[in-house]
Amino acid sequence: MVLIGELINSTRKQVEPILRSRDQAALVDLARRQVEAGTPILDVNCATLVEEEGACMEWAVRTIQGALPEVRISLDSPNPEAIRRGLEVHRGRAVVNAINLERDRWRSLLPLVREYRAEVVATCIDDAGVAKTAEQKFELAFRLVEGLVEAGIPPEDIYVDPLLLPVATDPNAGREFLRAVDLIRARFPQVHLICGLSNVSFGLPHRALLNQVFFVLCLAHGMDAFILNPLDRRLMAHLLAAQALLGQDPYCRRYLAAAREGRLDLSPPPR
Amino acid sequence: MVLIGELINSTRKQVEPILRSRDQAALVDLARRQVEAGTPILDVNCATLVEEEGACMEWAVRTIQGALPEVRISLDSPNPEAIRRGLEVHRGRAVVNAINLERDRWRSLLPLVREYRAEVVATCIDDAGVAKTAEQKFELAFRLVEGLVEAGIPPEDIYVDPLLLPVATDPNAGREFLRAVDLIRARFPQVHLICGLSNVSFGLPHRALLNQVFFVLCLAHGMDAFILNPLDRRLMAHLLAAQALLGQDPYCRRYLAAAREGRLDLSPPPR
Repeated sequence: MVLIGELINSTRKQVEPILRSRDQAALVDLARRQVEAGTPILDVNCATLVEEEGACMEWAVRTIQGALPEVRISLDSPNPEAIRRGLEVHRGRAVVNAINLERDRWRSLLPLVREYRAEVVATCIDDAGVAKTAEQKFELAFRLVEGLVEAGIPPEDIYVDPLLLPVATDPNAGREFLRAVDLIRARFPQVHLICGLSNVSFGLPHRALLNQVFFVLCLAHGMDAFILNPLDRRLMAHLLAAQALLGQDPYCRRYLAAAREGRLDLSPPPR
Repeated sequence: MVLIGELINSTRKQVEPILRSRDQAALVDLARRQVEAGTPILDVNCATLVEEEGACMEWAVRTIQGALPEVRISLDSPNPEAIRRGLEVHRGRAVVNAINLERDRWRSLLPLVREYRAEVVATCIDDAGVAKTAEQKFELAFRLVEGLVEAGIPPEDIYVDPLLLPVATDPNAGREFLRAVDLIRARFPQVHLICGLSNVSFGLPHRALLNQVFFVLCLAHGMDAFILNPLDRRLMAHLLAAQALLGQDPYCRRYLAAAREGRLDLSPPPR
């Protein structure tokens, strides 16, 4: 299971000022709390900083790895130049988030992924737009994986994202996504399957509930990588419970340890 | 989706005195609350009353259907005679809970199921004991369904229970159960697949969390019937969320109605 912490993102209003002002202590604190909660890879997205984005990406990678040398970064940007600046200073293997089949995106990111031997998220999008049905998603996944493998990227370094869309606008979005997961897994047993969970609940009330339940549905379908909020205790408790129930936690040792440490006590404390 | 309410069970210490003293108002109240919470079929088990069991079963069926004529009863007993007394007074189609392949059980219950045109839960147990692996469960399910269909029971009246065992004693119990569900569903598309959820968490802390998560795993594998506690708001919220996410709730109408009615507000109220 590969878990990537999602909280260092400049679209979050608590985080934007940390990035903009280069607040080293606050950034390291947010990184450390995520790592301790179970995500050894951290996504960094500073896209809303626009012209400063590349400089900020470079600073964030240096700052996080300076304090937490074991941590790897998922360099998350619409801007290949910001990704390049992150790769230049990253120690160990970074994750490029994300390549897709749009012609310009593919051409600008593939050389970087190869040059820096990065792992790579590959999202089911091409110049025609996003894939809605399972078969469309599978076809894009097929072209992505074949293209990356042809370019020398080993399948186990590829994280295919079938692209999760909101069920509020398309009632079949969740089902098609999960069917795509089954199709891709059957054809490419070695690639990782990844998604960001929260898109599915966009526009609906009680989003945390929907995200937790979709997380479990994804685990049932054998997905093995997620970009998520590791500080969401209920979400992480659902993961521990699912792993215990699916035989991925022999004798429930991790589950029982979490119970002993109070990490499964999910009610707010009495006042 | 077929949901059966599990609360009228004499092993529960709040319920035993209601059954023993034939407390009509309390029984009807417990029945009504379950029906209103979403279970139109109610399980009745008064096995701990031993010699009184048959009389109590008859009384419970009459009392519940007298107040709530639409409700059907799942007659749950180790004792075929108690099931027979329930069937004699039941209006509409009852559920017999449960036949299995133990020679005596099969011989005593099959004639009752046929005579009263009951629906029937069929549990993967034979004289050799409980089935642990998916393949063993499938083999018993195969013999159960073939035997029942041969006796004239239509497949859509059969609820196969692959028998869920605790993960605390067998780490593979959950995975083998879900694999069995896949095998049985592929071979018998028309039968229902049912289980009682709570057995899976036996012996572990935070059982409600495990039961909720296993519920979602079961839904992901296409199970369509459950014996559960409909007054567990978080469990029912997980069902509503899963149905919205799996495209079983067009435009999330039921989910949104539940949200409006406060049924998804799961935190304890502020004090």
